[in-house]
Order: sequence, then C-alpha cells, then structure tokens
Amino acid sequence: MSLPTTLNYIKLKTAPSHESELKDGDVFVKHLYFSNDPTQRVYIQKDSVPSRCYMDPVLEGEPMRAFGISEIILSKSDKYAPGDLVYGTFSWSDYQVINEAFVWMKIDDKTFDIPTQLSNLGHTGLTAYFGLTHVLKMKEGQTIVISAAAGATGSVAVQIAKHMLKSAKVIGLAGTEDKCRWVESLGADICINYHDADYKEQLDKAIGPDYIDLYFDNVGGEMLSHMFTRVKKFGRIAACGSIIGYNDDDKNKLTNWTNLIFNYLTVEGFIVTNYAEHFPEAFGFLIEGLSTGKIKNEGSYYPLTKVPEILDLIFGSKKPNGKLLTRIA
Amino acid sequence: MSLPTTLNYIKLKTAPSHESELKDGDVFVKHLYFSNDPTQRVYIQKDSVPSRCYMDPVLEGEPMRAFGISEIILSKSDKYAPGDLVYGTFSWSDYQVINEAFVWMKIDDKTFDIPTQLSNLGHTGLTAYFGLTHVLKMKEGQTIVISAAAGATGSVAVQIAKHMLKSAKVIGLAGTEDKCRWVESLGADICINYHDADYKEQLDKAIGPDYIDLYFDNVGGEMLSHMFTRVKKFGRIAACGSIIGYNDDDKNKLTNWTNLIFNYLTVEGFIVTNYAEHFPEAFGFLIEGLSTGKIKNEGSYYPLTKVPEILDLIFGSKKPNGKLLTRIA
Repeated sequence: MSLPTTLNYIKLKTAPSHESELKDGDVFVKHLYFSNDPTQRVYIQKDSVPSRCYMDPVLEGEPMRAFGISEIILSKSDKYAPGDLVYGTFSWSDYQVINEAFVWMKIDDKTFDIPTQLSNLGHTGLTAYFGLTHVLKMKEGQTIVISAAAGATGSVAVQIAKHMLKSAKVIGLAGTEDKCRWVESLGADICINYHDADYKEQLDKAIGPDYIDLYFDNVGGEMLSHMFTRVKKFGRIAACGSIIGYNDDDKNKLTNWTNLIFNYLTVEGFIVTNYAEHFPEAFGFLIEGLSTGKIKNEGSYYPLTKVPEILDLIFGSKKPNGKLLTRIA
Repeated sequence: MSLPTTLNYIKLKTAPSHESELKDGDVFVKHLYFSNDPTQRVYIQKDSVPSRCYMDPVLEGEPMRAFGISEIILSKSDKYAPGDLVYGTFSWSDYQVINEAFVWMKIDDKTFDIPTQLSNLGHTGLTAYFGLTHVLKMKEGQTIVISAAAGATGSVAVQIAKHMLKSAKVIGLAGTEDKCRWVESLGADICINYHDADYKEQLDKAIGPDYIDLYFDNVGGEMLSHMFTRVKKFGRIAACGSIIGYNDDDKNKLTNWTNLIFNYLTVEGFIVTNYAEHFPEAFGFLIEGLSTGKIKNEGSYYPLTKVPEILDLIFGSKKPNGKLLTRIA
C-alpha cells in the first residue's frame, strides 16, 4: 500500500514542562506506558467532523493523544496524590501537566502488571468484553467469526469467546500463517489467513452450511461485505473498527447490503465508553479470566521515540501479535 | 437508466385451471387484487442464493409470486369455504389452484375496502408500523428521516410517525416536487426532492444542527451512506429496503461506514413477518389510525395485463403516489 502514513505527519520534539504551570485541579504526571490503537488514526484525519467523532480531532501542531498509565508526581487535585498510578487520556510525552478531568481512575489493585492493566484490563480488554457480551449478546454454543483476530482486541475476544462464553466455534481471520497459528493457540477452532487467494473458500468450509451466529468486525470493507453474506438469519454484527479504511477510504466501501435486510441482521457500532456504567462487572469478568489463565496477555514494547512507527505498524501485516505498547521509562 | 427491466423477463400467457386439479387441502381462488412490491424484484434475481432470501426465488418459467386478496371459489380445505375473502401468497393469474398453506388468513372484518386491506392493513402498513415501533423503537418527540416517502410503505410511515407516534420532526425524501408536496400533505414537516442538485444542503437545513434520531431506509445506496453521517449518536436505522440497488448492484455500495462506529449507530434489517406474533397489536393500531383519519389510503389501480409494467414503474420517478395495486376483476 502506498499511503499517507501517519509517520510522515508526526514530528517528535523536545519541550519543557514546569511545575509552575500547575493550576488548581491539575496534576503533573510521569508517563509509564502508552496504548497504541488503530482509532488514533481517526483522531488525525484532516477532514474529520468533530461532532461525528467520539473524541475531538487532534489538530495539526497539537500533541498526539494516547491512552496511558502514568504516575502522579505533583498534584493540585483533590483526587490524586503523588505516587498514585493512574489510567487516563494523555499525550505522547515523557512528562505532562494535565487537568484531573483527563485522568479516568486511580489503579489501586497492583495484582496485575502495568501492560496487563493497560491492555487486557484496559480499554482493549473492555472492548472485547463489551463487544461480545453487550453488543453481540453472545450466548453459550453460538458460533462467531472474529476479524483482526491477532490484534489487540481480536486476540482477547477470541479467548473470551472460546474459554469464558463457551462459543461452539470461534473462527479467526488474520493476515499471516504465523498469526493464525498463534490465534489458534489462544483458543480459536481455526484461523484463516485472509491473504490466501482461497480464503473465502476456507472460511466457508470452516463456517459450514449453517452460516454463523455472530461477527465481531474490526476490519470493515470487503471482509465485512463478505460477512454480510455469511451471518445467519437474525444474526448480529459488532462494528468495532474498520481498520482497512482508516488510511484508504476506497477500501471502506461496502457491498452485499441486501443480505442485511433479507436476513434480518443487526449491526451495532460501539465504543467502549458507551458501557462505562458496566465497567465494574467487566473488570470482575476480565480479572477472573486473567487469574484462571483463560485470558493471556501478549504484547510488544517499544520506546517513546518509536511511537509514530508503532502506530503505522498496526495497519500492516508486519504488526506483531497482540497489543503494541509504548514503554516510556 | 438502462436496465435489465423486469418487463423484458416476464411473459403473460393463458393456461387453464381445472376443478379436478384440487387435492385435499387445496383451494381454488379467484384473485381480486395483487400487491406490487419492490421486493418482488429480488425474487427473480437470477444469481440469488435461496438460503439468503426470506422466500424462495421465483425461477425461470415459474409463475410470478405476489401477495394478494382473493375469494375462495372451491375448497378441499377444512379452513376455508367458498365465498371467504383471504389474504395470501399467490401467483399472477385470474384464478389459481393453491394449497391452503399459502393462504395467510381469512378476512372477517369488511369495514375497510379491499385496497385498504391489502395496503394499509396488509404487509405495507404492517411494515411501516413495525419499522417505526419495533425496529426503530420510536419515542414521542424524536426526529426522523424517511426515504421513498411517497412510496407505499414510506407514505404510511410518514403518517404513523407524525400523527400517531408524535414525532417532533418528520422529513421525507422523494423523487419529484409533486411527490414531495403530497408527502407534506400527509404530515411530513418537510419533504425534499432528492433529484435536486442541492438536496443534501436542503436536508441539512431541515435536519438542523442536532442531527436526527432515526432513519427509516427504503432506498439504500448513496442516500443511506449520506444518512450514516446524519443520524445522531446512539441513533437507529431501519433497513427496510434498498430499492436503488435491486436493478443495479453498483448503486448498492455504501460509504461513510466509520460514522456508524464512532456514533454508535444501530442498523437493523427486517421484514414484516419477523413480527408475526405482534400482528394483532399492529392491526389494532392501524385500524385506529384509519378510523380516525390519521392514516389515509391512496393508491392507483391497474389491470392484470399491466402487472409487469407496474412492477417496473415502482423503480422509477414516474411511479404514482402510494400503493400501486393490480385489480384483477
């Protein structure tokens, strides 16, 4: 693909932060880990309409937004004290002065390490959980296809679907043979390499004659269009992401729409914060999964200077398995 | 449009029916009215996959299927007697021998005339009702856009939304100025001619800055793609039909999909028989609407020999307002 890559549009620069910048309600944080997510690509889309995004766009010249886990160093907030470990919406940097409103919560339970807190117990794990339970309303014994199954969200969804929600059949779609074998090691009954010329035939064989109950879509475009024809009557589709199109709008076009009507399918778009009131239930579920080994954490770690490249890496087949985290210190 | 029109593929021919053909469970019916519906185009799609349709395809050489109201002339069924007026799934013809399984129900209440029974109190009115209430879950005070608003289903949906469900704003989309004025006479706050070069600007002005709660889609394609950008966060879309694409698959392509994800929209495909268990509730509602004048019946009537042409007429801007019925006798 020849793309206007994010890399070309992001510059790293040095800028000081001063304690004297702290106003009432502000905190001064030392960042520890940043999450790298496909959705970040959408923040920097030049022609985006703010009212149609779930977060404001990041405008040219502004620091790049990222979710992260950080340590409070100084505080003029009543909510947070120095030493607190917090989860929040930050910007790519080593240290940052930020209002307490951008801090989501303090992390009290240190049972799990920070990478696990930021991926499986963070918005990635929550997205997989809510996509399966609240959006798809998955029931024991149902069959499911999960795209981008080697991705951060997809790989957690595979594990939850198979080991915790007792899916009868989990079919993953991923972009290399190695990724597919990894997805199968996580619990998928089969994972198909969508770069294979005959991937649709392989998929049909895996699906069998009865079609599939649910589709967890992280990809969009041609793959979603095909799945419109492979989800059974009254089936459900979770529209979690459309990574195929974030860099190339042409690839986001959809066909086979009449299948949705004549098979009474429901498609629901969602983001994890839609389900904020159910976070306690989700944390309980995910902690149980992690504690019992039903959900495993796998990811790769890169330094802050590599963060634009990591974001790019997410959009291609060379992306390593699972979550790609930036480790700052 | 240069299309492989239905007209070119349908031949009228004379074939006798004999009383002696009746087996146990069969009835011999005299057809009175046929319904002409866009969905019939889908039955005769040559490459259709039967398991992905809600009804079997009509194959080459087979008589064309249509919903209709007919009179029982002879009966070897325990359910129906000569003289009964019945609603069912029939084939284009004057008379027909058919198994009782294809008769849906006997019409006992003769308060309303047959055209009203077949349109407003038939699958058309039911589709408008279930689309608004069960699929879109419309609440008083919500705003809605309805496409093909001068069509059989759209025109009933406009009236139900405005006069019965108390929508705060009903915006219709139709294909001529005359149709638009008619849709407004039915109760739409405004109806916009989608053939106007600036129809999107007109639509934006009608919608206002707050976007729209609901979209009742009978059209699909480019119009649906645009509405993905105009339904507000957590809004709902009823996928009732995609008439733009039934004759031309290229026009069925969709764009703007990320709007569905980042605005948490739900799209639900449906057909009226999904809600069969709720038919009594729907009939009560529709009868109230018709009795109080909140729903009006308007349509045009054509003889059986014109029926292929009427089906074609549905797909163009020359279609008359409301329901197009075939009057057989």
